[in-house]
Amino acid sequence: MSEQKKKLVEAITPMHEDFTQWYTDVCLKAELVDYSSVKGCMILRPYGYAIWENITRILDGMFKATGHENVAMPMFIPESLLQKEKDHVEGFAPEVAWVTYGGSDKLEERLCVRPTSETLFCDHFSHVLHSWRDLPMKYNQWCSVVRWEKTTRPFLRSREFWWQEGHTIHETAQEAIEETEQQLNTYATLCEEHLMIPVVKGKKTDKEKFAGAVATYTIEAMMHDGKALQSGTSHYFGDSWSCAFQVQFAGRDNTLQHPHQTSWGVSTRLVGAIIMTHGDDEGLILPPAIAPYQVVIVPIAAHKPGVVEKATELANRLSGFVRTKLDASDNSPGWKFSQWEMKGVPLRLEIGPKDMEKNQCVLVRRDTREKYFVSLDELETEIPRLLNELAQNLYQRALENRQNRTWAATTMEEVKELAENNGYIKTMWCGDLACEEKMKAEVGLTSRCMPFEQEKVGDVCPCCGKPADTMVYWGKAY
Amino acid sequence: MSEQKKKLVEAITPMHEDFTQWYTDVCLKAELVDYSSVKGCMILRPYGYAIWENITRILDGMFKATGHENVAMPMFIPESLLQKEKDHVEGFAPEVAWVTYGGSDKLEERLCVRPTSETLFCDHFSHVLHSWRDLPMKYNQWCSVVRWEKTTRPFLRSREFWWQEGHTIHETAQEAIEETEQQLNTYATLCEEHLMIPVVKGKKTDKEKFAGAVATYTIEAMMHDGKALQSGTSHYFGDSWSCAFQVQFAGRDNTLQHPHQTSWGVSTRLVGAIIMTHGDDEGLILPPAIAPYQVVIVPIAAHKPGVVEKATELANRLSGFVRTKLDASDNSPGWKFSQWEMKGVPLRLEIGPKDMEKNQCVLVRRDTREKYFVSLDELETEIPRLLNELAQNLYQRALENRQNRTWAATTMEEVKELAENNGYIKTMWCGDLACEEKMKAEVGLTSRCMPFEQEKVGDVCPCCGKPADTMVYWGKAY
Repeated sequence: MSEQKKKLVEAITPMHEDFTQWYTDVCLKAELVDYSSVKGCMILRPYGYAIWENITRILDGMFKATGHENVAMPMFIPESLLQKEKDHVEGFAPEVAWVTYGGSDKLEERLCVRPTSETLFCDHFSHVLHSWRDLPMKYNQWCSVVRWEKTTRPFLRSREFWWQEGHTIHETAQEAIEETEQQLNTYATLCEEHLMIPVVKGKKTDKEKFAGAVATYTIEAMMHDGKALQSGTSHYFGDSWSCAFQVQFAGRDNTLQHPHQTSWGVSTRLVGAIIMTHGDDEGLILPPAIAPYQVVIVPIAAHKPGVVEKATELANRLSGFVRTKLDASDNSPGWKFSQWEMKGVPLRLEIGPKDMEKNQCVLVRRDTREKYFVSLDELETEIPRLLNELAQNLYQRALENRQNRTWAATTMEEVKELAENNGYIKTMWCGDLACEEKMKAEVGLTSRCMPFEQEKVGDVCPCCGKPADTMVYWGKAY
Repeated sequence: MSEQKKKLVEAITPMHEDFTQWYTDVCLKAELVDYSSVKGCMILRPYGYAIWENITRILDGMFKATGHENVAMPMFIPESLLQKEKDHVEGFAPEVAWVTYGGSDKLEERLCVRPTSETLFCDHFSHVLHSWRDLPMKYNQWCSVVRWEKTTRPFLRSREFWWQEGHTIHETAQEAIEETEQQLNTYATLCEEHLMIPVVKGKKTDKEKFAGAVATYTIEAMMHDGKALQSGTSHYFGDSWSCAFQVQFAGRDNTLQHPHQTSWGVSTRLVGAIIMTHGDDEGLILPPAIAPYQVVIVPIAAHKPGVVEKATELANRLSGFVRTKLDASDNSPGWKFSQWEMKGVPLRLEIGPKDMEKNQCVLVRRDTREKYFVSLDELETEIPRLLNELAQNLYQRALENRQNRTWAATTMEEVKELAENNGYIKTMWCGDLACEEKMKAEVGLTSRCMPFEQEKVGDVCPCCGKPADTMVYWGKAY
C-alpha cells in the first residue's frame, strides 16, 4: 500500500523543485486536460470540465441576477468587420486564425475565428437597437475563442480557450461605467467567495489595457510562486465603438445618439488560478464550491461484512447535501487516498468495521490533513462545517502568501533587489509610458494594475524621479 | 389598440399563404434570431437562446442521470486526422471550413473547423483508454459545429449551429448497441414529453445513414405543413473507428481489444421543430417546459390606483413556481397581447380594477385562446393545471396532424398521387438502393426511416415489384 502511494505521489514533481513542471504534472495526472492533435489546443477532460462547469453555473446565476441575458454569436468574423476599429484589429491581427476555404471553394473574403466578439456584437446592436427604451442591452455569451499564440500552457494560455464574454450598451456613459464596475465586482466575488482566491482590483495602465478600450479594469491574483495572474477584466469603451459601427438610438429628446459600451470576461484560465493558488506537493486542492466531488468515501477493509453496504448508504445520504463520490473500486485504500488527494477532493470520509462499531467515521481535510472522528449522527452539520473551514483556510493561506510577497519600493535599487523574488512590488508611478517600459526592460516587471485602494508609498517615480501620485502594483506575470 | 394589434399580426405572413415565409417571419419577429455578417450564420438572440438553454438544461440532466460526463474538445481538426476514416471524410469534406493561416503564418497543415468530432474523440480515447476497467467512457460535449452548406435557413440549416454530441466507447458491441438505443429513447422522451412533438423512431437506410456509421437510428417529426424533420440521430459504429484510430484496451482476458463505439446528437434544429410543429398564424406557441416565460402578466388600466402594485405582487408570487414576465411597459394592452402571442408565451394573465374587486384574474391560453376567470386564491393550482392541459393539447394536435397526413401505398401510382400532398407515405421496400433512388428521382421522396414499429402494408416493393418485408416511411424533408 505505502509503496503504491509513494509511487503515485512521486509522479508529481515537487513545487519547490520546478513549479512549472509541478503545474503541468497536476494538469495531466489529476486528469484535468489532455493535449490534442492541434498544437496549443487542449482537451478538457471530465474532471477538468466539471470544475469549469461549476464556475459557469455560479457566474451565470450572478449574471442573470443582475439582469443579463445569454445569446450566441457566430464564431466567424469577416475581415472587413474586424478592421472597423483600428486599435482593436492592430491588437488582435497577429494572433487570429483565418478561414479561407469553404469546402473546395476559396472564400471571397476570409473569415477570422473570433478572438473576442466586440465587432460581432456592435454589428448586431446596430440592427436591433432603435430607441432609448431598448436600453440597456446586457448580453453575455459562453463560448470558446481562438488566439494563435506561440507559447502555450494548459488553462493559462492556449490557442483555444473557453470563456464568457459580456457585451452591454447603455444610454449614458455613467451607466456604462457602473456596469463595468459591477461586473468587476462580480468577478472579485466569484474569486474571493467561491474560488477562495484573494484579488487586487484596479485599473490597467494604457499600455496594458484592452485593444480598443477607453479603460480596462482588472482583478489580479497572486499564484503560490509569487507570480501574478490577470484573472478577469472589465472594459469601458465609451462610445467610440458605437460610432465606428454606427450603433444609434433615438434618445429621450428624439435626437440620434450613440450608446456607451462595456465588455468583460473570465475564462478557463481561472482553473489555472485555482491550481496554482491552492495546490501543494500532493496535487490539487479544490475549493468546495467548484469541486466536482466535495467528499470522497473510501471503504476500509471493504471485504468485511457490511462495509460496502454502509459506505453505499452513506453515499446516498450525503448526496442529498454535498457532491459525493463513493470509490468502490478494487484499488487499495492507500492508493485511493493518494489518488483523490492528487485530484484535490476537499474531504475524505473513511468508514471501516471499527468505525461502524462506534457509529462513527473518519473525515480527513485535504488542506491540513487533519483527521476528525465524527459520529454518523452528525454528518449533516459536521461536513458543511468542515468544508466551510477548509474554504476559509484556503483563502487565508493565499492571502498570507500574497501579504508575505508584497513589498513597497521607492528607488530602482530597491525595486531590482526585491524583484529577485517573485511577488508584487508597489511603487509610485509618474504615468509616463517610458518609465513603464523601463521597468520591463531593466527589471522584467510589468504593471499589474493601479489598485483602487491607493497607498502613498513615496513621493516620486523611482524610474525618473519626477513627482508621482499614482501607486502601481508591478510583478512578473503568467 | 385594435389597429396596432392588427398591424403587428399582419407583419407575419399567414401559414397557408406561404409556409416558408411564415417561418422566417416568426424567427425574426419573435426575436429568436438575427442574420449575421457571415452569410448563412445566425445569431441566437436572448429569446431564442433561452429556448435552447431550457432544452440543454433538460437534456443535460437526462445525460448525467444516465452516467454521461461533459468534456470539451478543440474546434479544429487537422486534415490528416479527418482523413483517417474514409467514409467519414468523403461525407464531410465538401462542406468543411478550412483554417489555413495563424496570424500571418501559413499553417503547415490546414485545420478543419469541426463539422462533428468523432475523429477528435477517437484520438483522445487512444490516449486515455488503457484497460477494460476504464470502460465505458460516456462523454458528451455542448458546442457549435460548422458545415458550409449552400442553402441555409435559421435553425434548420445554418453554416454554424449549436448542438451536443455524445461519444461513447464500450467493452462489447451489445453494450454499445444498448447505449445507441438508450440515447435515441432519451431524445424521443425530450421531444414527446417536453417539446410535445410526437416522433417516429426508426433506423435509417444505408443511403441516409451517417458517414462512417454501421447503423444510424433517428427520430422523425412531422411539421405543420406535412414535411418531415429529422430531429435527432444516434449512431452505432461497431469497432471500425477504434480500429482506424488504434483505440485499444487490455481486456478481461488480457488480450488487446478494440472498444465498440456510439455517437449521437441533437441541435438547435429542435427550435425549428418547435416553431413548425406548434406555431399558428399569430406566431409561436411554446411548450411550457422550454418557454422562456410560461406566464406573461399584463396589467389592464394600469393608470388606475393599485393595478401595477397588484400585478407586481402577482409577478413575485408566480415567480416562485413558474417562469413569469410582467409587462409593465407603456404599450397598450392590445399591443402587448399581440406581441406576447407572437412570442408564444403559453399563458397570459390579465389583471385590472374590476378583476381586483372580484379577487380574480383572467387567464388566456395561447393555444386555444380560451379565457378563464380564476380566483387569485387558486393560482398555484390553476396555472400548473392549465399549462399541463396546454402541453397535452399541443401534443395531441401535432399527433392528429401526423395521423391525418400519413398514408399507406402499395403501388407507384398510389405513391405518386399521395405525394402531391406533403406527409408520410408508408410502403414496403425491398431494400434495394435503386428503388430508394427511384423514389427520389420520380416522386421527390426520401426515406425517413424504417420504423421500429413495423406494419405489413403490402407484400411487394412498389418500385420493383419484388417481395419486401420492410416498411419504410417516405416523405419530403427539411
